[in-house]
Amino acid sequence: MTEIITSAQNQKVKKLLALQQKSSERRKEGLFVVEGLRELQHCIEGGFDVDTVFYCPAILGIEDGEALPVALAEGTRCVALAEGVYDRVAYRGGTEGIIAEVKVKERTLNDLSLSENPLIVVLESVEKPGNLGAILRSADAAGADAVIVCDPLTDLFNPNLIRASIGGVFGVQTVACSSEDCIGFLKSRGIQILTAQLQDSHLYYNTDMRRGTAIVMGTESTGLTDAWRNAADAHIRIPMLGQLDSLNVSVSTAILLFEAVRQRVKMINE
Amino acid sequence: MTEIITSAQNQKVKKLLALQQKSSERRKEGLFVVEGLRELQHCIEGGFDVDTVFYCPAILGIEDGEALPVALAEGTRCVALAEGVYDRVAYRGGTEGIIAEVKVKERTLNDLSLSENPLIVVLESVEKPGNLGAILRSADAAGADAVIVCDPLTDLFNPNLIRASIGGVFGVQTVACSSEDCIGFLKSRGIQILTAQLQDSHLYYNTDMRRGTAIVMGTESTGLTDAWRNAADAHIRIPMLGQLDSLNVSVSTAILLFEAVRQRVKMINE
Repeated sequence: MTEIITSAQNQKVKKLLALQQKSSERRKEGLFVVEGLRELQHCIEGGFDVDTVFYCPAILGIEDGEALPVALAEGTRCVALAEGVYDRVAYRGGTEGIIAEVKVKERTLNDLSLSENPLIVVLESVEKPGNLGAILRSADAAGADAVIVCDPLTDLFNPNLIRASIGGVFGVQTVACSSEDCIGFLKSRGIQILTAQLQDSHLYYNTDMRRGTAIVMGTESTGLTDAWRNAADAHIRIPMLGQLDSLNVSVSTAILLFEAVRQRVKMINE
Repeated sequence: MTEIITSAQNQKVKKLLALQQKSSERRKEGLFVVEGLRELQHCIEGGFDVDTVFYCPAILGIEDGEALPVALAEGTRCVALAEGVYDRVAYRGGTEGIIAEVKVKERTLNDLSLSENPLIVVLESVEKPGNLGAILRSADAAGADAVIVCDPLTDLFNPNLIRASIGGVFGVQTVACSSEDCIGFLKSRGIQILTAQLQDSHLYYNTDMRRGTAIVMGTESTGLTDAWRNAADAHIRIPMLGQLDSLNVSVSTAILLFEAVRQRVKMINE
């Protein structure tokens, strides 16, 4: 009979909680946490290695000896949790019944596999994991090649980010690096750099995004640094036709990405 | 010398808290709550009547007798709060120092003032105040004529909605009504109804949005009801090119709105 952990003081449970709460722990262990069946499936489809699956038989409604409702690689550790313990480790409480420790994939710029005319999102010093997650969701939907996060203030495996991305973080290649390295990389590949900023800018829909393109977004509070402004091939803006002077950064990014999609599909149809 | 309220048990303070927490209280009093200087300015510019301003002299850094840093109509009640009390009523703690009770504006469909080729967002049964607020922000930015919320599950003066809209709720006309009334209104004005749905749909950028257009969005969980599907002049979809099968509803709405902006500006330039 499978052993069920009934105490939140269990070492495995304490480690799981620490991985959710501390980026230092994620870095040290090379692991991060994925909650929910659909998210875990996206994660496995995205080629990530699952280290340990924690599940709650009561919530999943499975009997002892029955298989979990997800296809795991052989040798994946599975640990059963009592309902009270599961509730303690899960953000969404009793709605899912499955939560996993997954191995971090650290990519560098040179690991990126890019299409002929890549579409890349670059985010400089993004502050809120929720915004970054929402951008990853849109980048996946737009079929972007990669999201590059420069000088990040949050790690790419923050649980709020993963939740907000609804699994998008597993469908898009991500890299964290310095702005300097990123600019060098884009220039060396001949990828045009379009920075989202007001000054000396063109309307985004008058800008050709059919060739290899990086759309570069700054923080909501301070915008882009001079390094990016100077490296830009063009500055682009979304027209503001109302009272307010800005959009949410995840909304702006999605509008720009789907303009690239529109132009590129049109190119194929022409 | 101005009297400063030092107790959270004060009746005015208790009423302010109740207005933030309960839609029933907002309905009963015909008042809602706006926090922050910038938001309050947008609110006044949007033609709303401020009933009472609560402010914290210590946080605002103003002396007794000095004017508040916002232009109020004559006769607006101003109430000073001690810092400890202000912290209790303010969501963002000590960062703003100003919070106001404002009179609800109840508009009906017939109160709407529309341009020649109006651009309208219709939301059916939207669930999350945060999403609705984000949509209002984008609708303001896109210069939409109105946002109509059909059969709403949240009231339009929920504090989370107002915060998420960053003041956009004051720049766009809003109406809450039944789906039936809304469909009748749009048909009678000859405004085309474009519903966001997969079934039998066209790609959104192949759809002409230059004439009077209502973009209709369903809930994230269940989509649109048959009433709207049947009333539609066309169904439109955003292509999903990645692993995921949906975008956040506030992101989708913004993409569709700005495609209308693009087409309409192009029309002017042509």
